[in-house]
Amino acid sequence: MMDTLRKGRILLSLTGWSPDVWLETLRHEAPDRDIVLAPDHAADPNIHYAVVWKQPHGILKDLPNLKAIFSIGAGVDHLFQDPHVPDVPIVRVVSPDLTLRMSEYVVWQVLDHHRKGQAYRDQQRRCVWREDLTQKSADEVTVGIMGLGHLGLDAATKLQALGFRVTGWSRRPKDVAPYITLFTGEAQLGAFLGSADMIVCLLPLTPETAGILAAPLFAQMKKAGPDFAGPILINAGRGGLQNEADILAALDYGALAAASLDVFESEPLPASSPLWHHPRVTITPHAAAASSPAKIIPPMVAQMNRHDAGGPLTDLVDRTAGY
Amino acid sequence: MMDTLRKGRILLSLTGWSPDVWLETLRHEAPDRDIVLAPDHAADPNIHYAVVWKQPHGILKDLPNLKAIFSIGAGVDHLFQDPHVPDVPIVRVVSPDLTLRMSEYVVWQVLDHHRKGQAYRDQQRRCVWREDLTQKSADEVTVGIMGLGHLGLDAATKLQALGFRVTGWSRRPKDVAPYITLFTGEAQLGAFLGSADMIVCLLPLTPETAGILAAPLFAQMKKAGPDFAGPILINAGRGGLQNEADILAALDYGALAAASLDVFESEPLPASSPLWHHPRVTITPHAAAASSPAKIIPPMVAQMNRHDAGGPLTDLVDRTAGY
Repeated sequence: MMDTLRKGRILLSLTGWSPDVWLETLRHEAPDRDIVLAPDHAADPNIHYAVVWKQPHGILKDLPNLKAIFSIGAGVDHLFQDPHVPDVPIVRVVSPDLTLRMSEYVVWQVLDHHRKGQAYRDQQRRCVWREDLTQKSADEVTVGIMGLGHLGLDAATKLQALGFRVTGWSRRPKDVAPYITLFTGEAQLGAFLGSADMIVCLLPLTPETAGILAAPLFAQMKKAGPDFAGPILINAGRGGLQNEADILAALDYGALAAASLDVFESEPLPASSPLWHHPRVTITPHAAAASSPAKIIPPMVAQMNRHDAGGPLTDLVDRTAGY
Repeated sequence: MMDTLRKGRILLSLTGWSPDVWLETLRHEAPDRDIVLAPDHAADPNIHYAVVWKQPHGILKDLPNLKAIFSIGAGVDHLFQDPHVPDVPIVRVVSPDLTLRMSEYVVWQVLDHHRKGQAYRDQQRRCVWREDLTQKSADEVTVGIMGLGHLGLDAATKLQALGFRVTGWSRRPKDVAPYITLFTGEAQLGAFLGSADMIVCLLPLTPETAGILAAPLFAQMKKAGPDFAGPILINAGRGGLQNEADILAALDYGALAAASLDVFESEPLPASSPLWHHPRVTITPHAAAASSPAKIIPPMVAQMNRHDAGGPLTDLVDRTAGY
């Protein structure tokens, strides 16, 4: 029987990740709540909050007193794959730690392309000492960021601090820092693509963005020329944003000079994918910005406690927009 | 015969670099001066300024009206190899462009080690999809910068913006931004070395710093342990700062986990050096921060004009300290 002094239960439902460290961290941070694991407790009236990653479909629909759902990743597309998500507030992770990690990844990959990491590694392998005298400095390079949420804006700040020219594209108009040249909506997508030397994709995955990184988009990107080896694509958003066959074709026909991909249409990336062995593709295993339980759980529990006390939830997902 | 309306001549003396683009840029930026090439004009009374990189020894000593010497690189150790440098002011390059490029290199290499670039590239080669779950975030990593001149301070700012903890060591006390934990002099070198996860060396090469990156220094660095794979050395200063045999031994005996070297005892790095093939060494061919004539010459000519008009020279080298 439930201790009436205790607060409502938290249901934890993770697919693909071991729940152990999440369970342990939740127990540590919310000692006054019971933490229970799905799929048990499917209709438990004492469950007030759900903490999820790719929950089994329908698992949340019969909880009569569910107050809110927390995603443990920045994207919530996984959550909406389930057609039975109850109509309660959904909270995304906005964690300084996750943002920091994503900006690390973006700056790392931008610099590795900018400073010709692959070419110098190839030279090292062959004991070749030759400085690339065409090296531009950062202020001669435009990095265009697709998606200007928390992650995109933070990456922009850090790229600008390193001297890069930064542009951004977002579906909807928004206020951004003056050093970001902003392009908005379908109408300005072509101008955005045509003016960037590198494109960093941090878009959410929604029905409107699915498959956007494909041949028609690559065709609008800046063309290679005597002073420009061709545009570079960096996708750390979601694999569902990209068409991998089109990326390979764009690399081979010159529309793209190189790509850094952290996410894939199917994950893990199948061993049969030609992306693995493409000399101008850099692959990381969806590792750009791992969610750290120690950094993510404390603010999540703080949100639950504030909400129980009548306060507002923050970082809510817009269900209509899907992100 | 010299046109008396024209200003004093500039002597250009470069070793190892083609003078063409420097000559052309000087002519463009200083149309009111004659630009002449060494070794001619060895005693020309009309030469007022010398622009040099590794000048042949003695070439400056007989110029009766030489007012100042300008180095086209940030370091001036090359200049003092010549025992016959006349007693005139020596101006180093302090160029925002060169600083920007050096910070790009430093941040690139710090991130490549921090984000385990080599391990992920090895995995990609073998089609292995495995996230390294020990990934720390930047705020759990201390980067120690040896040498807090213009370059070191700028790199510190940019590393701090990415979330890294930044410490610095300088031979002499100095004022630094509050986010840099400062260590000073011989007495604090051990504490500095023992607390850094990565060491970035941007020291000038002087008789006191020559060979400093050697076994006794590595022995004071942080030790590898369960949560720490060992310290990383990044040297973008001068090859003369490092003992390459000691670096190789430190890598093989565990005092160093990895190294990024842009400079070498002998350049080009001989094909016989085992550094080329060491799996934990990243080699670039003294390409961290190339001097760009288009960015460096205009402020240099502006200094000459200001000095001719009775104004002070800036960015002067301290001959006693050797940098």
